[in-house]
Parts: sequence; C-alpha cells; structure tokens
Amino acid sequence: MVPLIILVKSGGEESLPGWREDFRAVDPRLDVRWWDDPTVAAEDVHYVLVWDPEHGRLKNYPNLRVIFSSAAGVDNIVGDPEWPAHLPLVRMGGTETARRMAEFVSWCCLSLLRGARRMALGQEQAHWDHFQTSSTAPERRVGIMGMGNLGAATARMLGAIGFPVSGWSRSRKEVPGVRSFAGAEEMDAFLQETDILVCLLPSTPETVGIINRDLLNRMPRGAQVVNVGRGSHLVMDDLLAALDDGQIDSAVLDVFEREPLPDNHPLWRHPKITVTPHLASLASRRERVRYVAEAIASHEGGGTLPNLFDAKRGY
Amino acid sequence: MVPLIILVKSGGEESLPGWREDFRAVDPRLDVRWWDDPTVAAEDVHYVLVWDPEHGRLKNYPNLRVIFSSAAGVDNIVGDPEWPAHLPLVRMGGTETARRMAEFVSWCCLSLLRGARRMALGQEQAHWDHFQTSSTAPERRVGIMGMGNLGAATARMLGAIGFPVSGWSRSRKEVPGVRSFAGAEEMDAFLQETDILVCLLPSTPETVGIINRDLLNRMPRGAQVVNVGRGSHLVMDDLLAALDDGQIDSAVLDVFEREPLPDNHPLWRHPKITVTPHLASLASRRERVRYVAEAIASHEGGGTLPNLFDAKRGY
Ligand SMILES: NC(=O)c1ccc[n+]([C@@H]2O[C@H](COP(=O)([O-])OP(=O)(O)OC[C@H]3O[C@@H](n4cnc5c(N)ncnc54)[C@H](OP(=O)(O)O)[C@@H]3O)[C@@H](O)[C@H]2O)c1
Ligand SMILES: NC(=O)c1ccc[n+]([C@@H]2O[C@H](COP(=O)([O-])OP(=O)(O)OC[C@H]3O[C@@H](n4cnc5c(N)ncnc54)[C@H](OP(=O)(O)O)[C@@H]3O)[C@@H](O)[C@H]2O)c1
Repeated sequence: MVPLIILVKSGGEESLPGWREDFRAVDPRLDVRWWDDPTVAAEDVHYVLVWDPEHGRLKNYPNLRVIFSSAAGVDNIVGDPEWPAHLPLVRMGGTETARRMAEFVSWCCLSLLRGARRMALGQEQAHWDHFQTSSTAPERRVGIMGMGNLGAATARMLGAIGFPVSGWSRSRKEVPGVRSFAGAEEMDAFLQETDILVCLLPSTPETVGIINRDLLNRMPRGAQVVNVGRGSHLVMDDLLAALDDGQIDSAVLDVFEREPLPDNHPLWRHPKITVTPHLASLASRRERVRYVAEAIASHEGGGTLPNLFDAKRGY
Repeated sequence: MVPLIILVKSGGEESLPGWREDFRAVDPRLDVRWWDDPTVAAEDVHYVLVWDPEHGRLKNYPNLRVIFSSAAGVDNIVGDPEWPAHLPLVRMGGTETARRMAEFVSWCCLSLLRGARRMALGQEQAHWDHFQTSSTAPERRVGIMGMGNLGAATARMLGAIGFPVSGWSRSRKEVPGVRSFAGAEEMDAFLQETDILVCLLPSTPETVGIINRDLLNRMPRGAQVVNVGRGSHLVMDDLLAALDDGQIDSAVLDVFEREPLPDNHPLWRHPKITVTPHLASLASRRERVRYVAEAIASHEGGGTLPNLFDAKRGY
C-alpha cells in the first residue's frame, strides 16, 4: 500500500493528532502531515487541505493532485496570484456544512425579528428593557442572495419556520416554496420584496461590494441585513449610513473585510449590529475528513471530484 | 344598541386610544374604558381585560360577565384571594400567541445550540472570540414540559428545524413527530432523553419549583434549560449550582420570581445565562382584540367561551 501524503492546515498544529486519527479511520492509505512539517519533501505531497495558504506556497508541490479547501469559500486560495490553477480545487460541501449554515442563518433571522441586539444590550446594561416586536415570521420576507449548497438549505429551513423566502442567483432554481429570481435583470424585483436580506454569495469580482448604498436603497424602508458570505460583499460605510438614516433597521454580520475584526473596533459597539466572529458554518473535523477521503478515493479510482472551483465563473 | 363596557388594563393608559380604535373596528357595541376611569360606575362594567389586577379589585363589579386575561398565564388573577371565581376566566390564546412563542423558543434553542451567550459576551468585550460548537440540531433533543396551545406549536416548529422533540404533559398528546410522555410516572424517561429542557407549563401548586436540583440531575450532563413558563417554576439557586458544577451547560430565562428583575441583579452578569425581559410571547393588540371580541360576541349570543380557566386543575 503506497501512502498518499496529505498536508493539512486547519485548526492549528495541535489538532494534527485528531486529523490523523479521523483520516486513518476512513482511509489507512492517507498519511496526514502538518502544513509546516519539515520532514516532508515537496515532491511527496499529493493532496493539501487548507483555507488560507501563504501566497506562493502551493506552486511548490510538483506532484500535487488536488487542492481541498477546508471551507466553502476558496477566495483565500485563488487570491494567491501563483496558485496552480491547472489543478482541481475542491470546495468544502456536504450536508453538515449546509445544515450548520441554515441553523445559523435561522438564528440570525429570528434574532432580527425579535430584536435580539436590543435584548443583549439590555442584559449588558443589567436593565429590564421590556419591548414588543411587531412582526411574526410570515410577515418578514427573507431574500437570499446566492442559492448554492448553503443558500438552498437555508431557504428550506427558513421556509419551515414560516418566513416567506425568495432566492437570487445567476441561474434559475427550483426549490419548493421558494421564489427564484435570476440575474441582474431580476434583482430589482427581488430586492423590492425583501425585508431581510441574506448574503450567501461567493466572493468573486462580480460580487465584491454588491451590498452598497444603491442596493440597500432598493429594499423596503426598515429592511434588515445578514451577511454570512464574505466581508468583501459589503460596503461598510454604506451600511452604517443606511442604519443612521433608518433605511436599514439592523444587521447581523459574521464576516468582515479584515478578520479578525480588531479588538475595540467601533463596529463592536454599534447598537444595531450583531457582530459574530466568522462562525456561521464550519463543518466538524469528522465531516470534513469524510468528505475529503471520499473525494480522494474517487479521484484515485479515476472517478469525478465534487464541488469543483470553476475559474471561468469565479467560484 | 346597548353599549357593553369593557375595562382594559394593558400597555399603559396611553394605549387606550389604540384599544378603542381596534375594538370599534370589530364590534361597535363595545365601549372601551381605561382600568382607572373614574367616570365608569362599577355596576356598568360587563367585561375586563387585564393581566395583573390589584388584589381585591375584581370583586367590586356586580355585573361582570367574563374576565379576560390579556396573556396566556392567569396566575396574577387567580392569585387574588378575593377574585370572583364563579365567573368565567378566559386565558389568552389564538394562533398568533402560539406562533410568537414558537419563534421565540426556536431562537432560544438555536441560541443555546450555537453558544449565543458567548458570542454576546465577545461582542460586549469587543473581542474576536472564535469558537466552534459541536452539535447540530438533530443531535440535541428538546423536551418540552407543557404541551398546551403554546407547547404544541413550539414542538412543531422545533421539529421543522430538525431538533428531535418530545413533550411532557398531564395527558398524552398526539402531535406528529413528537414523542409524548404523560404524568409523573413518565417524567424520568422524558428527562433522560432531554438535552434542552423547555418549560411551557402554567404556574400551579403542582408545578411551582418543578425545575429543581433533583430534576436537573436527571437530565444528561451538559443539558440546557429554557424557562418561558413562569419564574416560580425554577428554583434559581439549584440552577446556579448546577451551572457551577457543569451538570447544566447554559440557560435562557425569560421569566423570573420577581419581575422586573431588578437592575444590577447578579443574574444579568452570569456568563451562562441569557436573560430576556419576559417578552417571549405577547400577541399584538389587534390579535388580542379579535380574540376577545369574538369571545364576547359568542357569549352575548349564548355560545361558548374559549380557553377557560379550570379551577380544579388550576390552569
Ligand atoms: N460565514 C461562514 O462561516 C461561511 C461558511 C461557509 C461559506 N461561506 C460563504 O458562503 C458562500 C456560498 O457557499 P456555497 O457552498 O453555497 O457556494 P455555491 O454552492 O458555489 O453557491 C454559490 C451561489 O451564488 C450564486 N452566484 C455566484 N455568483 C453570482 C452572481 N454574480 N450573481 C448571482 N448569483 C451568483 C450561484 O449562482 P448559480 O447557482 O446560478 O451558479 C450559487 O447559487 C461561500 O463562497 C462563502 O463565501 C461563509
Ligand atoms: N414568557 C411568556 O412571554 C409567556 C407568554 C405566554 C404564556 N406563558 C406561560 O406559558 C404557559 C402555557 O400556556 P398555554 O397557553 O400553552 O397553556 P395551556 O394550553 O393551558 O397548556 C398547559 C400545558 O401544561 C400541562 N400541564 C399543566 N399542569 C401540569 C402538570 N402538573 N403536569 C404535567 N403537565 C401539566 C397541560 O397538560 P394537559 O394538556 O394534559 O392538560 C398542558 O399541556 C402559561 O400558563 C404561562 O405561564 C409565558
């Protein structure tokens, strides 16, 4: 049995024993090594599992077969100007990632519906601030930008809670109970009927800065925003201005232009923004191991790879 | 058209014009007056809509026909030793109250699942505290104590999100997808399979202090608690001790022995307790007006009243 070496950079070096154990349980051929293991020769590396490689690093492996992103977004990999773009790049997928995102966004939408930021401020101030929110879920229409693996699962869960849901994507979708809007031409119609906007787009040249003043103005007054895509999707100053003048009521942000968001950044104190530290959806190690090992087995057997990055469309 | 006088105590006197307008729209016979209106003679009062009447007050209306509680719980009314117990007492019900409760408890359970209290503390400290929670909803079993109007609706929504759900009540229930446990004999089995305990019981002599050390110890280690019933259900010192020693992981509390919970009470600062100011479910004024006006119309026409308090069972 020829071992296949996979370099892993995820969770810190202290997590290596866990990765080794989980990989060994599903495919004993896999020899799991840490990203910076000095005993591994570059030509022996067959696979990598990484989210944010140092620029210039990935080009150094002459026998690399597949790059696995340890998360759904691959912007940190393709952002390396020297990444080996001729290699297959597999984005993390799977049902657990999608379920975690759906649960997180459901929490976000219910938080916005019920004024959770105000509740949190009341608790912070140790003060009983009783208030009533006017709407129930059927009265707040959620619009999801990005209806891929994560967006579709999220749409289904929000629908089950009772929110009217629509989705916007490049191509038209058939998700039961979800209105589908496609392409730039239908964006206006989509925004006009969106009380809570959820961004689940990938970061591409076309989607950078998409949540800007113009977009926010096209939603009904008092709309709310959930950004769980990427920090680059949102023009922060535009959101802050729209919060100031009431066009936007409140927001939940999980992703930021610069991460970690610096300690004591003024955003943390904004009374209408719930800040969470990029934890919307991270599959468990076990789920990621299963996903990657299955893909490797398929690839080694001459089969196909799932969820491939497509350079032409940019995600 | 003989006017029917209804005294209202809900939302503060400034809300009277709103009550008048909403009642007039559905039944012009109803003359809506504020609770302390000095121009209303006691013998002219036919109906009252109130949640927390002063003790000794309700006995003073010789021609009172029905008491409407403006919320689902009636403990503040029947807690008056002199309340006119021969009169029908209608508890607030209806689908909107149930939906609001289901949405709130869904938010609570997702908050516990995803460590929302820790996220809130991170934001309060303006500090990026990235962490991963291990479970998804299908891995956390929710057990609901009290499967009435609110409990049943809540069970359905939690099930739709993906939580395995069971319910505990006096009598056995048939809610699709929900395991039903009934009575004291089945409480142990119910608690053993409950990772998140939700209290939606009414406050009665039998349920006071029900969430105590003994009950908490019968749940799996690391279980979580949501109390949206009444403060009297929970023995606070027992919960605090169970949080200290890890038997209970965290809790969301919406109701308290003394309300409002005093400003600067130590509970506000507890790192494992989310405190919310009794706002889990309050139907909109419009929904309550519709509910009460329909009940009055039925009663005046010789028909039945919904959701009656039953002194024998105590709720
Ligand atoms: N916050 C977190 O913890 C976290 C975790 C995981 C992922 N994410 C983010 O979520 C994103 C989505 O993940 P996924 O797995 O669901 O990706 P995916 O399956 O590739 O789906 C992407 C969706 O976006 C749509 N889209 C892309 N470009 C578009 C454009 N220019 N105009 C309109 N629609 C466009 C696609 O439309 P078509 O279907 O028509 O192609 C597709 O529906 C990731 O890229 C990442 O940024 C965040
Ligand atoms: N936090 C808030 O904002 C808020 C808002 C509204 C209501 N509440 C609370 O929620 C409670 C429930 O409201 P609801 O409208 O759902 O009441 P409900 O329809 O009367 O239901 C009460 C449920 O509790 C069960 N029960 C009562 N005593 C029991 C006992 N000794 N052992 C086991 N089960 C028992 C009943 O069992 P059976 O069905 O077998 O009789 C029933 O399923 C209210 O009383 C109030 O305290 C809180």
